[in-house]
Amino acid sequence: MLKGHQSWVFRDKPVIASTATVVGPFEGRGPLANDFDIVHEDSFVGQDSWEKAEKTYLEEAAAIAIERAKLTKEQVHFYIGGDLLNQITSTSYAARTLTIPYLGVFGACSTSMESLALASYLVSSGGAQHVLAGTCSHNSSAEKQFRYPTEYGSQKPPYAQYTVTGAGAALVSRQGDGPVVAAATIGRVVDMGIKDPFNMGAAMAPAAVDTITAHFRDLQVGPDHYDMIVTGDLSKVGHEIAGDLFEKHRIPMHKTRFRDCGMMIYDYDKQMVQAGGSGCACSAVVTYGHLMKKLRSGELRRILVVATGALMSPISMQQGESIPGIAHAVAIESPAAASAKE
Amino acid sequence: MLKGHQSWVFRDKPVIASTATVVGPFEGRGPLANDFDIVHEDSFVGQDSWEKAEKTYLEEAAAIAIERAKLTKEQVHFYIGGDLLNQITSTSYAARTLTIPYLGVFGACSTSMESLALASYLVSSGGAQHVLAGTCSHNSSAEKQFRYPTEYGSQKPPYAQYTVTGAGAALVSRQGDGPVVAAATIGRVVDMGIKDPFNMGAAMAPAAVDTITAHFRDLQVGPDHYDMIVTGDLSKVGHEIAGDLFEKHRIPMHKTRFRDCGMMIYDYDKQMVQAGGSGCACSAVVTYGHLMKKLRSGELRRILVVATGALMSPISMQQGESIPGIAHAVAIESPAAASAKE
Repeated sequence: MLKGHQSWVFRDKPVIASTATVVGPFEGRGPLANDFDIVHEDSFVGQDSWEKAEKTYLEEAAAIAIERAKLTKEQVHFYIGGDLLNQITSTSYAARTLTIPYLGVFGACSTSMESLALASYLVSSGGAQHVLAGTCSHNSSAEKQFRYPTEYGSQKPPYAQYTVTGAGAALVSRQGDGPVVAAATIGRVVDMGIKDPFNMGAAMAPAAVDTITAHFRDLQVGPDHYDMIVTGDLSKVGHEIAGDLFEKHRIPMHKTRFRDCGMMIYDYDKQMVQAGGSGCACSAVVTYGHLMKKLRSGELRRILVVATGALMSPISMQQGESIPGIAHAVAIESPAAASAKE
Repeated sequence: MLKGHQSWVFRDKPVIASTATVVGPFEGRGPLANDFDIVHEDSFVGQDSWEKAEKTYLEEAAAIAIERAKLTKEQVHFYIGGDLLNQITSTSYAARTLTIPYLGVFGACSTSMESLALASYLVSSGGAQHVLAGTCSHNSSAEKQFRYPTEYGSQKPPYAQYTVTGAGAALVSRQGDGPVVAAATIGRVVDMGIKDPFNMGAAMAPAAVDTITAHFRDLQVGPDHYDMIVTGDLSKVGHEIAGDLFEKHRIPMHKTRFRDCGMMIYDYDKQMVQAGGSGCACSAVVTYGHLMKKLRSGELRRILVVATGALMSPISMQQGESIPGIAHAVAIESPAAASAKE
């Protein structure tokens, strides 16, 4: 399964039997609104705290994904997930509701693909029949924890990002219909010395480039191999930096095929999101909602989702540390592309 | 590899090629002092914050484990680890130093065996040749984050636990000499409604019993199969509760063979640790230091390490939530026991 130094290529390609996405009202006013399963008008979803709301989004996405795969939660062997909150409580409390054996993971916003990579690995290698991968984030719980009380109404620099409220889940199975996971590349930590916690895009861009380059090297493929290479949440600033770095390394990324989930989820003209979206839910809902639709229809045949994470905490920032970035990549193929190759 | 509902049994048993443990001064005055590789007299280890000290302990343990396995960090395919700090920063910053492709995990104090289980799985199934698993905790960073400023000198109830300062790491390899990993059981979240964050032992005990019972069921073995079944950090209160629960379920655990790392690391008569030790480093340093010595010498032939975690956060406690517990179990065999069975 190991290919090159840090990638897995799956001989028995695990199937993404189902996905589910639940988002908040603000995401429901963005251009991808129709691709999500539930758009809540109440960002609290009836809970008395943002943290509990975040957990509820994840519980809903998990329940839909399991039901859609025609399974019961008792049939799912493992749940792998994480979130941005201290001690990943949204996920752990959702795992309490699910009662599925649980592997908590953390890679900040890269958690979406870290969990999908591990779920795919376990299923492909016979460690499980069915594994659920799911992550979440909530704009208000993230602002409260990482930045200032929203009541302050403090201004943000234009390179700041807007944490997505929502949750995305995928049910990975050994057999079934649906897009398949072909490969995954686990990233290493890259830190170029950025110390401004608002500038996460710049901090994560070098990690995204490092992981994509490693993926190409390990699998001996180039950018042409994919219809789309989509980063998690570099947003405008980070995406431009990543583009520049690829140019510097003479890797010919296609301008129109190199995209970013953080730039796709909101409408820049109408929504005040500074550089774009972020959060564990950003790449999760764009991938499991929007991109999976295009993979199922065959409009996209082969994509590489490169979820990016900024691994700092408010305390590490206060202690003068810089921001370590990481990115994990998962290659997903449409059913047609998967069967054509066999 | 899947056995039963939530366990993996390894056909190609991965080898724990090396382990390393680094602890603080207080642990150095406990009964296991001679089993640790480094006992620091300065709990800050020359750093200017407890968080940076915690990271340094982990970096040291990782470096020793890699060197002892006669490898360079470039030869290690993945590093899997986590800790108790918000956004597991000690581990992520150590992963930045290591530059090994990195999978961050979180299971509170169960992280030690979550990371060893995943490392063993990856190596056994061909996803890697060498994987490093390592976790850490620091008494002062944990007190600061989860409880009160230590300067307050606030009193603790007798059922509270004392977070271990230290780090433990294990290098899991496809081949080599050393104890082997035979199986692992991934736990589910169990929550019996405990709301007192000082009473973690009671919150985690039912999860430990649930995972051990699942392990017996999945592998179709009983307590006799192991020379020692050792929980992570239930300490006195939780260990007694676990014993009672086994009795209630009519599972005949051997009194002398059912142990707890949190009760082994400190000297109750001389050290003020209330119910005993805790923290991601507790089961890590006891297992990788003390128990590995006994496995290497053959004094222990077969053990089950059941690391336990309390998955709450200060915020979830303030919001009236109860404490979700989890436990992950890893079965380790001495080289003699492993070869005798073949």
